[in-house]
This record gives sequence, structure tokens and C-alpha cells, in this order.
Amino acid sequence: MAEIDFNSDMGESFGIYRLGDDAAVLPHVTSANIACGFHAGDAQTMAATVRAATALGVSLGAHPGFPDLQGFGRRAMQLGREEIYNITVCQVGALQAFAAAAGSRLAHVKPHGALYNQAARDGVMARALCEAVRDVDPSLVFYGLAGSALVTAAREAGLAVAQEVFADRTYQDDGSLTPRSHPAAMITDVDASIAQVLRMVRDGVVRSLGGVDVAVRADTLCIHGDQPGAAGFARRIRAALEAEGITVRAPQSR
Amino acid sequence: MAEIDFNSDMGESFGIYRLGDDAAVLPHVTSANIACGFHAGDAQTMAATVRAATALGVSLGAHPGFPDLQGFGRRAMQLGREEIYNITVCQVGALQAFAAAAGSRLAHVKPHGALYNQAARDGVMARALCEAVRDVDPSLVFYGLAGSALVTAAREAGLAVAQEVFADRTYQDDGSLTPRSHPAAMITDVDASIAQVLRMVRDGVVRSLGGVDVAVRADTLCIHGDQPGAAGFARRIRAALEAEGITVRAPQSR
Amino acid sequence: MAEIDFNSDMGESFGIYRLGDDAAVLPHVTSANIACGFHAGDAQTMAATVRAATALGVSLGAHPGFPDLQGFGRRAMQLGREEIYNITVCQVGALQAFAAAAGSRLAHVKPHGALYNQAARDGVMARALCEAVRDVDPSLVFYGLAGSALVTAAREAGLAVAQEVFADRTYQDDGSLTPRSHPAAMITDVDASIAQVLRMVRDGVVRSLGGVDVAVRADTLCIHGDQPGAAGFARRIRAALEAEGITVRAPQSR
Amino acid sequence: MAEIDFNSDMGESFGIYRLGDDAAVLPHVTSANIACGFHAGDAQTMAATVRAATALGVSLGAHPGFPDLQGFGRRAMQLGREEIYNITVCQVGALQAFAAAAGSRLAHVKPHGALYNQAARDGVMARALCEAVRDVDPSLVFYGLAGSALVTAAREAGLAVAQEVFADRTYQDDGSLTPRSHPAAMITDVDASIAQVLRMVRDGVVRSLGGVDVAVRADTLCIHGDQPGAAGFARRIRAALEAEGITVRAPQSR
Repeated sequence: MAEIDFNSDMGESFGIYRLGDDAAVLPHVTSANIACGFHAGDAQTMAATVRAATALGVSLGAHPGFPDLQGFGRRAMQLGREEIYNITVCQVGALQAFAAAAGSRLAHVKPHGALYNQAARDGVMARALCEAVRDVDPSLVFYGLAGSALVTAAREAGLAVAQEVFADRTYQDDGSLTPRSHPAAMITDVDASIAQVLRMVRDGVVRSLGGVDVAVRADTLCIHGDQPGAAGFARRIRAALEAEGITVRAPQSR
Repeated sequence: MAEIDFNSDMGESFGIYRLGDDAAVLPHVTSANIACGFHAGDAQTMAATVRAATALGVSLGAHPGFPDLQGFGRRAMQLGREEIYNITVCQVGALQAFAAAAGSRLAHVKPHGALYNQAARDGVMARALCEAVRDVDPSLVFYGLAGSALVTAAREAGLAVAQEVFADRTYQDDGSLTPRSHPAAMITDVDASIAQVLRMVRDGVVRSLGGVDVAVRADTLCIHGDQPGAAGFARRIRAALEAEGITVRAPQSR
Repeated sequence: MAEIDFNSDMGESFGIYRLGDDAAVLPHVTSANIACGFHAGDAQTMAATVRAATALGVSLGAHPGFPDLQGFGRRAMQLGREEIYNITVCQVGALQAFAAAAGSRLAHVKPHGALYNQAARDGVMARALCEAVRDVDPSLVFYGLAGSALVTAAREAGLAVAQEVFADRTYQDDGSLTPRSHPAAMITDVDASIAQVLRMVRDGVVRSLGGVDVAVRADTLCIHGDQPGAAGFARRIRAALEAEGITVRAPQSR
Repeated sequence: MAEIDFNSDMGESFGIYRLGDDAAVLPHVTSANIACGFHAGDAQTMAATVRAATALGVSLGAHPGFPDLQGFGRRAMQLGREEIYNITVCQVGALQAFAAAAGSRLAHVKPHGALYNQAARDGVMARALCEAVRDVDPSLVFYGLAGSALVTAAREAGLAVAQEVFADRTYQDDGSLTPRSHPAAMITDVDASIAQVLRMVRDGVVRSLGGVDVAVRADTLCIHGDQPGAAGFARRIRAALEAEGITVRAPQSR
């Protein structure tokens, strides 16, 4: 039976500042990737987000990023292997403690922004990330871009992996995402999004921009929570998948 | 048999900046209170300090403080009960993860600077702190000023407590520390320090500035690591205690 | 001829985070107090806010606060006299440079949040603030709570002062604001707000909660920009004042 | 008559943390590049450093860096053109205000670390930096790596330029510095350093590692203040230059 996880980045508010509509998106997803205070989030926000996700039975994940609140962790930074390892340990540990304090437990880790993108292409960074996760708790599931260096590194570290796909992004012939600078990078039509996801989940392929069917493994689908209409989109795509008999649940609950 | 723990604040460097001579002090103490990145410390420093303490068999503690790197956590701040709880969870969790990654485990928590001093007098803050520690891991030992609101709150939270005393500070008739602004606040003579500690450990009393013998419980002795001669002082006081048949070890190892 | 200035706090976004609707409020005010990166704001936000205010002929002010982004500068902090002086110099200087780069100039300074409130009651803090402003540029106008220690300190420092009043807050018999914890602290009825402001501007008095007419000097009126309907409120109150023949303009332009 | 400026990076302490021995180096230099709180420094340190430099008649400069205290501004970051412009305005403005408060004035700007190195090769970044400096105060002198994109950009912006050379680094055939990763990157022999500087100042050439005499313009010499023996080295090299009749003074005082 085909199945998939719905994940969304959450807890990215900071202090007085609100970001995203977590309350609206949370009922539609099965995994929450919660910011850990480096690129976004703070202790108050982590606590509230962990409680809200736990109350709805949504799987708890840490969402570590670069130490760059001003740039929301989206600016490329050059950190050494050891720095990557240590900022990951620190952020995963913080989320773990909030999960424990809420009577729950951390289930997965998905890196954020520039850290995710750089490590998807850079095996050294990817290994530093994944070894940190394993050394903190080897039972954590690692979420990374399908087919990327993140997946390879997580497997080498002995971690269970959930390969991540996107409903609103087009793919290249080599299975990579079309860069955002490309005019056809984004899929804005909901039906086209749903069709792409269905093919990825059922058939394990995605039609590239160049017209090629590329093999792709779809364990978890990223639902962007910071865009207008995010909750409605999540609901529609979830309904479409379930109508096809596809189970939507977190990998940890399988 | 009388016994006591020697604890010292450590890992208070940040980025390129060095503070304290941890390598020199570490061999003489039995507990390391390691800064968690809020008032001092960063991911690199936490990792290195946890490894160094683990290698010497020194008990690992989290040393949470106010989010005030510029003021080194020494400036009074007004945080709500919930904020105190959450910044404690966050910092304890970070240290826990570094301990796990080093193949060890976190054993105690001692708050830092203004957070320690404010909570020693304020039961609401003290309870927020102690409940956070308990909710993360109820087996952690809480270190707090002997006879203060921190001790009461830790007991109410069901935590094991180590009451902390000072070798280089004089006491008031009510058992509180003489404020630093008082000319006789500090004991600078090593022999007088040793004599005070011996009485506290063996007899459970301290002679106050006013000449009264005040009951005090001495489970752990704070060794300041950031002063010149700190390592020499730690060695001398430890030798004096051991010469009297007093065992120096962490409470967790009893 | 009676006249008054309308001021509003602005530029309090940070990184990806938006706060307040500056664009909607700006056309209705005559002075913009722009955050300087300590309690809110960053270099990008400062630049954009200075440009927007300059384009509309709104007087540029620095809005220095405590170094506490997480608490939005609203948490009480204990800083020394010299620290207050230096954080004020630093923030005023940053805004001055953005004003210069936009071909304009800084005209006033109004402290923010806990810094404003603490210094309104504490002459030492108030003097540190005002001496910093004078030492950077003695032609800057200082905005402070009418009748408070801020006004006294600014005069002693030789600065021109604009005494600040509030349309949406009630007053005590001694001329201080009713604390927010009091159920009658806020005036939510717009007509009552307008009536209070008109009496303050024309007659120099405000009716206290206790029913006493208290003398108050009203040079500048604070328009809160972060509440729903802020722009509409600003427009209505401005129209009411102008209908009474009261000129609304910045003190620097008089 | 040949002349040169001696500049040194200063004011790079932060909070409780000390870095460099500014007091020892300051008497030997003619220009102080003072950190502005982004990569290092804070309001207290800026104030103290400006006062110390002013007391000795040392020319005051801003030393802007990336917003990366943890990495000391040495980690490469990808910031947009507008971000570079705005973080420069912000930092130069802060230093300007401290200079004004000390009764002095800012005379120059020299970027720090990764910002300096990236902009030395990247004309877009270099122009953003230099246009920011010019827009704040067109009379500021810009210090940048001799022969680099920084020099070109400063000239295009209409700024006076001081081309910077190094006594302790070897050069490549194209006039660039030998990368630090190269075993022969550093000159550790003081006499060799002095000989290199004398040739650069008197003859306008430097002998490259490859044995070629490369033209170089030497307006200002960087004296590293954070190394052991920095003050002694500065004194010796200054004595050697003055013995050859070369005047050591800041460009602004010419």
C-alpha cells in the first residue's frame, strides 16, 4: 500500500514577531519541523509549537539552521565540518528537551534553508549533519531532498531516511529541483501539483521540465506553511491522495 | 563519612573569545557547570568542554543563564515565569545532547549569574527553573544556594538537591551571602577560606560576619575558575579537605 | 496658535519579520521614531523606513531601546549609567548615518519601551540618555513623557524638549499614566480620546481618573502604529484637531 | 618625501571578553580601525577605544564587518548588494557618533575580515561598500587592499583612498597576497618584513614569491594587534622607517 508523510516547517516566529499560520496548517500535516532558535524560533515559540503539534498527534521534528536570524538562515555561509556538527547537536538537543517536557519525544530532523541546500550538494556537510543527529539519538529519522547527498549521508550514518519531494516545484532531468531563478521553477496550479505528487507516490517518477520521466522516491511531501492559502492547499492535496487510497502518515508511525 | 562536591563554571568562552582557564581547573573539580550559549558559550565551546570534562570523569552539568551575552548574564532582567521555564528547557536540552554525543550523560543543573541570584530570592522564578529541569529529566541533581528559595523549589519539584556553599564569601546572620558591595564580602586569605569550608562540611555551621554560628548545609563547593590562581586554590583546598578525611566527589556518584 | 506634533514608532520589523503597518500610518504623522537595531529593526529596515519617511516629509527620529530583540525592548533591564549612555550614542549614530545617506538629517530622539519607562522615573538613567543625545548632536529634539524625569534631564542637558502625551491612556492625579494593569488604563472610545487630546493641547490640562484636572504640557502626541485601525484613528484625530484650528507639525519645523 | 600610515584593528573586545592588547599597540600606530559591533565590539568597547585613540591623536576609523559575532566576521557570507550597503551605513554611523561624542571626528573606513576579502575580489560588493561610505560622509578616506577592487570602487565613488600593504605577508606575481594556506604565506622574520616594507614605500615595488618585482602602492601598513609581540614589532618597524627618513602619519593629516 502506497503511503506518504506530509511535513511542514513550523515554529518560525521570534519574540514579538509572528511568521506563518501554524494553527491553520497543523491539522493537515503529519510531521512538524520546528525551528530551534538559530535561524528562527525562540524558547517560547519552541514550547508552544511542540505542545500544539503534540496535542494533534503530529510527529515532532527538529529544524536546525544556520545561526543567522537576520537572514532567516537563507544566506549561504561557510562553516567548517565541526561547526556544522556542533550547531546540529545543539539545536536537536533543544527540541528534544521541549518534546520531553511536553511528555512526548522527538522523532525526526530536517535541516533548514541554506543549510539544507548546501548540504544537499556537499557530502562533507551532509555527513557532519547526519553524524550529529545519529550521535544525539540514532533512532531519529532524517528528512532530506530525495536523491541528494543528504540521503546518502544519512544512510551511511545508519539513520532511517525519509526522502523529501515537493508539490509546487518542477524538476530537472537529473532529478534536482529547477532553481527558483528559472521562470518555470514553481507549479502554481493545484491540479498540476496534485498530479505530480500522485505520480511520485504511486509510480516513483516525476516528469522533468525537459519531458523526461525521472525516478524519484517520495517518502515525505513538504507543505509550505508560510504562503497564503497554505492550509487550503494542504487539505486539498491530502484529500486527493486519500481518495486514491494513499495513506498519509509519519514514517515513525509505520 | 563527610563528603563534598567541588563545582566550577566552565565553557564560558564564545567564538574567538577565551574566558577562564578550564584546562587548569578541570583536574581539581568533580562537577563542571557548562554554559549553554545564552549568557556565554556556543556550540563549539559546549562540545569541547563536554569532551574535556568527560575525559577526566568530571560530572557534567548545564549552566543556564539569561539571554544576555553582552552582559554575561549578570544584568538583572525581568522575565515571566513561562520564559524562565522555557529558557531553562532549551539550555538543559542543548547540554544533554552534547553529553549524549560524547557518549556520556548530563548529571546536574546549576543556574548562572543574575538568574541564580534572582531565583535564590524569588520562589516563583525558582519553581519555574526547577520544574523545567524536572520536566526534561527528573534524575538531574539541582545545585542551588544553600538555604535559598532554589533549594525549596527543587525539593518541591521532586529533584535531588546539592546545597551550594562558597569558600571565598562571608555570610550574614541569616545565612545569606554578604553582598559584594560590603567591604568584608570576600575572603581573600586561603587559610581562612579553608577553615570556613571545613567547618561548613564537618560541623554544618558557618561563623557569620556578626559572629553568630549559622547552620548551613554544604553539599557542593563553588570553585571560581575565572580568577588568577584559581587552579592553585582548588588544589590547596582539596588537599586540605582530603587530609581531614573528607571525600571530594560529585553527588551523582555517591 | 496651538499646535502639536504626531509621532509614531516605526521601522520595527526585523529580517523576514514584519511588524506594524508603517506605510498606512506614515501619511498621517509628522514625526517617525525609527528603531535602531537593538530592540527591533535592522540595517535594511532602517534604510527603507528613513527613505519612506523622508519622501513624505516626516521628521526623522531615532528610537533607541535596550539590546533585547527577543523581548522587543519591553523587559526591564538593569544597565549602568555608562551602558545607557553608550547604547544611546550607538543607536542615534546609526540612524544619523541612514538619514545622511538619504540626503536628510536626524531631527529627534525618543527612547523605546522599558528604556523609556525606566528613565521616565529614574533621573540617573534619564541624564545618561540625554547627555548621550547632546554629545552626539546638541540640535536634536528630545521626546519624553510629559512631566517626567526625561523632560527634566533633557532640559538640564541643554536639549530642546517635546513633551509627549497619549490619546489612548488615562492619567493619575499626579500626572502619571495609569498602569496598564489597571482596568481603566486604556481609552478605547475614539471620541473620548479626541476630547482628551483637545483639552491637553488647548487648555494644558487632563482630567485624571480620580476626577482632578492635572496640568500637562502636550508638544507631541504618540500614535501607536501596531494596532488594528491605527491609520484610521490617526486620520480621525488629526482631522478633529485641524478642525479646531490646531496645527499638526513637527517641533523642528516650527 | 616618502610617507606611510600605520593602521591597526582595534576595539574587538565584546562584553566581558577581551581581545588584543590595544593599549600596547595604540602608541605605535597612526590609524585605529575600530570594530562597530557586528563582527566584534559593542557600545562600551567602541566608546573606550575611541577615547583612547583620541587621547593619543590616532586617526579614528570605522572597521565594519559581517553580522557574525560567533565567527568574528571571518566566515564567508552571501549578502546582497543592498545588504552590504546598509550594514556599512549602520556601522560607520555608530562609530561617527562615538567620535562626535568624544569631541573628535571619524576619518577613515576599513572593512574587516571576510567582508574585506570578498569585496577585494568582487566589484559589486566593493561598490556597495564604497557608495555607503560616500553617502554617509564623502570626506572619509577608504582603506583597501592595494591594487584590488576595493581601490577601484573607492575611486569611482569619489573617495580618497589609502592603499594597504602588509609587512608579514608574501605576494604573488600578480600583486595579490599569497593565500594563508600556502607554506610561504607568512613572513616571520622581522628584518625581512622591514626590508619588504621599505621597498614598497620607497620604490613602489614588492618582490613576489616567484621572484618578480611587482608594482605596489603603499599608503598604509597594517599592523596586526592580536599577535604576541605586536607592539614590539610595530615599534621596531616604525623606528626602521623613520631612520630612513620616511614619515609615519595618517593620510588625513597630510
